[in-house]
Amino acid sequence: MADLAFRTARRDDVPAIVAMLHDDAISAARYPGHPVSEEIDAAYWAGFDAIDADPRNDLVVAERDGELVGTMQLTFIPSMSRRGAERLQIEAVRVRSDLRGAGIGREMMSWAVDQARERGCGLVQLTTDKQRTDAHRFYASLGFRASHEGMKLSL
Amino acid sequence: MADLAFRTARRDDVPAIVAMLHDDAISAARYPGHPVSEEIDAAYWAGFDAIDADPRNDLVVAERDGELVGTMQLTFIPSMSRRGAERLQIEAVRVRSDLRGAGIGREMMSWAVDQARERGCGLVQLTTDKQRTDAHRFYASLGFRASHEGMKLSL
Repeated sequence: MADLAFRTARRDDVPAIVAMLHDDAISAARYPGHPVSEEIDAAYWAGFDAIDADPRNDLVVAERDGELVGTMQLTFIPSMSRRGAERLQIEAVRVRSDLRGAGIGREMMSWAVDQARERGCGLVQLTTDKQRTDAHRFYASLGFRASHEGMKLSL
Repeated sequence: MADLAFRTARRDDVPAIVAMLHDDAISAARYPGHPVSEEIDAAYWAGFDAIDADPRNDLVVAERDGELVGTMQLTFIPSMSRRGAERLQIEAVRVRSDLRGAGIGREMMSWAVDQARERGCGLVQLTTDKQRTDAHRFYASLGFRASHEGMKLSL
């Protein structure tokens, strides 16, 4: 057990969250002109405020010994499929790069699935880049099935 | 062009939407005891009300000559990834089964992508069951890339 504490992100967590989102080879490749050290763009604050104000979105941080070690965004989507049950979607999962492989991601996902169960969701879903083969094994070990193609169209 | 009109679903559309959601071999297999003719379960009304009350969710119907011919759910997800841009997620896309292959789905998706552009979204995303190989070609022809694994965990 990684002994994590979970809470909703606060505004002063934004720089650390943005750093974690970019401290990743695949994400970094999407923004070649946007290194981690760059000043936080106004768009990120707006993104944070939009998530924070939305009762169906929860930007979560995981802390260990008072340090921020992981983040993920939970979106609870109301639905008419699957008998009208809400579904939990998980996006933007990151563990601090120097702490990967230590069980933090597993504890984060277990916590998220517990939140979905408590809320009565019928399904938890996420997409993961096809290049992240380690992640596929990780999610499969948690019971996820790669049953769908995740299709994206950048605008 | 299929000459469609698009609008947000109303409560009296619910039976027709539920019928379309179930009039599909893959979805039907998920609910072996739930034929289309069954009375609309209370959970569907609750699902509709939750979507209808949420400003980031839009249950859309497509009409032609006053008849409901398609449905899809749009969810606008605020985000910290991709420079804080909102993303549009499309779920529960259905065209009335006797009208498939006539361009209705293409017009629905084009309209949805236009909505995302107008709103300033950075990305449109959806997942589609790996069994639906026709759907993969269809989405690819609209510019979507099957870049991700779509992972699901039923609760």
